[in-house]
Amino acid sequence: MALTEPRKGQNHITSVPSESELRRDVVTGRWVIINTSHPSRVGDFEFESADVKGTGTCPFCPGNEAMTPPEVYAERPSGGQPNGPGWTLRVVPNKFPALQIEGDLQRRGIGIFDMSRGVGAHEVIVESTNHQWQLADLDAPDIARTLHAYQLRSRELRGDQRLKYVLIFKNHGVAAGASLEHTHSQLIALPVVPIRVADELNGCAQHFEYRDRCAYCDVLHQELEARERVVCETSAFAVFAPYVSRFPYELCILPKFHRADFLLVPDDELQDLARALREALRRLRSALKNPAYNFILHTAPIEEGNREDYHWHFELMPTLRQVAGFEWGTGFYINPTPPELAAEDLRNASI
Amino acid sequence: MALTEPRKGQNHITSVPSESELRRDVVTGRWVIINTSHPSRVGDFEFESADVKGTGTCPFCPGNEAMTPPEVYAERPSGGQPNGPGWTLRVVPNKFPALQIEGDLQRRGIGIFDMSRGVGAHEVIVESTNHQWQLADLDAPDIARTLHAYQLRSRELRGDQRLKYVLIFKNHGVAAGASLEHTHSQLIALPVVPIRVADELNGCAQHFEYRDRCAYCDVLHQELEARERVVCETSAFAVFAPYVSRFPYELCILPKFHRADFLLVPDDELQDLARALREALRRLRSALKNPAYNFILHTAPIEEGNREDYHWHFELMPTLRQVAGFEWGTGFYINPTPPELAAEDLRNASI
Repeated sequence: MALTEPRKGQNHITSVPSESELRRDVVTGRWVIINTSHPSRVGDFEFESADVKGTGTCPFCPGNEAMTPPEVYAERPSGGQPNGPGWTLRVVPNKFPALQIEGDLQRRGIGIFDMSRGVGAHEVIVESTNHQWQLADLDAPDIARTLHAYQLRSRELRGDQRLKYVLIFKNHGVAAGASLEHTHSQLIALPVVPIRVADELNGCAQHFEYRDRCAYCDVLHQELEARERVVCETSAFAVFAPYVSRFPYELCILPKFHRADFLLVPDDELQDLARALREALRRLRSALKNPAYNFILHTAPIEEGNREDYHWHFELMPTLRQVAGFEWGTGFYINPTPPELAAEDLRNASI
Repeated sequence: MALTEPRKGQNHITSVPSESELRRDVVTGRWVIINTSHPSRVGDFEFESADVKGTGTCPFCPGNEAMTPPEVYAERPSGGQPNGPGWTLRVVPNKFPALQIEGDLQRRGIGIFDMSRGVGAHEVIVESTNHQWQLADLDAPDIARTLHAYQLRSRELRGDQRLKYVLIFKNHGVAAGASLEHTHSQLIALPVVPIRVADELNGCAQHFEYRDRCAYCDVLHQELEARERVVCETSAFAVFAPYVSRFPYELCILPKFHRADFLLVPDDELQDLARALREALRRLRSALKNPAYNFILHTAPIEEGNREDYHWHFELMPTLRQVAGFEWGTGFYINPTPPELAAEDLRNASI
C-alpha cells in the first residue's frame, strides 16, 4: 500500500485513489477497497515472472522417481512399474509433510489452549512429465486427468475417519510459494475444517436461511446477466473477476450447475472444467506476462457434500503484489484494479 | 511451504516435520500447524533485511515538508510554523489515500452486492526527523510520543459519525510493504469494523458469555504463569510469542491491565508501553538481523471502548517468509518455529 509516491518495482502501486469504493462480499462479509479513479492495469505491476529455469536435478522429472516417497497414485497408460518411468501423472506424499498420516489426534487442552497432534495427509500431484511445461501448456484432456486425480485422491482420503477436510491448491512460481518449478499441485487432508471454508459455509447458510437460495448461485446469475466481470465461459463453468476481488486480476471459476462437492462432478464436466481452467490460466499468462499464481479449490467438508446452501469453486490469484500490515490486521484488502477492468484486460488478452 | 527439499533463500523452510502440532486460537478459532520436530530457528531464514539506504529525496525529512499534504498534527517543542521545519513528530494525510474524508457513504445495493463510497481517513505518522533511525532506535520517551499521537489522531477521527473503526499499523521495510523507508506508521479510519477485528470481538464475546472472563486476560495469566513464551515484560505490559503464532517470531504485546480501548491508556502506561515495544523491536532486530516487520494495533471499535470482554493489544510480525495458496485458501497457517523456541531466541538476543 503506497504511503506517498506509488513506485513501480515495489508492488506498492496500490493506493492512489482520489475516489474509491468499498465493496462487501455477500458470502464472507469481507470488505475490499477498490480504487476506481486511478486504477492499476496490467503494465503497472512489476513482479517476478514464473518462467521455468530448468536448472538442477528435479525430483519430479521421469527417471528421478526414487527422489520422492513411493507414489500413492500414478497413470501409466503404456504400462510400467510403480515408482519407475512410464507415468503421465504421478501423486506422491510430500517429502516434508506439514502433517503426518500415522497415529491418532490426541486432542487435549493445555489450560485454555486447544491442541492436537498434526495428523493428516500432504500429497503432491505431478501434473506432467515435461519440466518445461506449465499447467497452462497442457492440453485440456491432460488438465482433466489432473482434476480427476484430485477427485481420486480426495475420495480415498475421505475414508479416513480422523479427517474432516481435503484442500487442493497450487502454488505456481517462487513468488507464489512454489519451491519446485516442475508443474504440480498439492493436497492437504486436515482433521479440522479450515476457518476460511467455515466462514464461507456460515455465510452461505445465512444467505440460504434468509432467501432459500445458494449465495454462489445468486452471484453466478448476477455475473452472467451483467457480464461486466465475466472473462470467459464454457457450457458448465463461468470464469469471472469477483465483484469483491481482494487481489488485482483475481478470478473465480464457478460451476453453473449447483453442487456443494467437487467430488460429485462427472467426467464430462471435468473435461469442461479443464477447458475453463486452461483458458483462465492462459489469459492470465498472456495479459500479465507469466505471473506466479495460487489457486485453491473450495469444496464442502467431508460428509457435507449434499448441502443445498454451498457451491464448490476455484479461486485463482496471480501474485502481483505483497500484502502488508493493513491486510493482516483487518482482513480488509485494498485492490488497485477494479475487477471490471481486470475482466476487460483478460477478455482482450490474445491466447 | 516446502514441497520437497526445504531450501534456504526461498523462504520455504517450512514443512519439514516428522511430527507437528495443531493449535487452535482461543479467540479467533484459527488453527495453526506448528512444526515441533524440525523447527526453523533464527539462522534458517533468508530474507531481505530492512536496512536504511538513505538514497533519493525523502518527503518525510525536515525541509521537505512541502512534499506532503499539509500536516494535521505536529509537535514543535521549540516552536516554528506549521509545514516547516522544527517538528519532532509530524502527522500528514497520506498523499495517495486509500479512502477519502470528503462526502457521505452513499451505501447501496447492486443486485445482491453491497457497496459504498470509500469514505475514511488515511494518515501517516512520521515518528522521527532522523532518516537513518528506525523506531527501535528512538528513546522510549520518543516512542511514547508516537503512541500519544496515535491516541490524539484516533480521538479526533472518532468524532466523525461516519466512521466505525480506527486502525493503527506500521509497515517497516520493503518486504513488509513500506514504500518509504523514513520511519513512520499509518492510521486508517474506516466506516466499517474490519472482519479480523469482528472475529476477535465475536470470539471474546463467546468466551465471556461462557466464562464471564476476558479471553485475553485468561491468555495473559496463563502466559505469565507458564513463562515459556514470555520474551520480556514491564510493570504494565507482557511481550510474548503467542501459543498459536501464525508466523515465526510473531509477538503479542498485551496490557496487564484490562482495557478494551487503547485510547483509555493513561500517559504513564504509554511510557511503559514504549519501553515494552522498544525492547520487543530491539530483540527482534538483534536476533533476526533487522527483519522487515508489520505491527497492528487492535482496539475496540468506536463507541465500544468500555466492553468487558475485549482487550486491546499489539500484534507484531517479522516478515521472514511469504504466505502461499494454502494460507489464503484456509486461514490455516504453517509455522516452522514453535513460539516456545522463538521466545527463547528473543530472550537470549543481546540488546
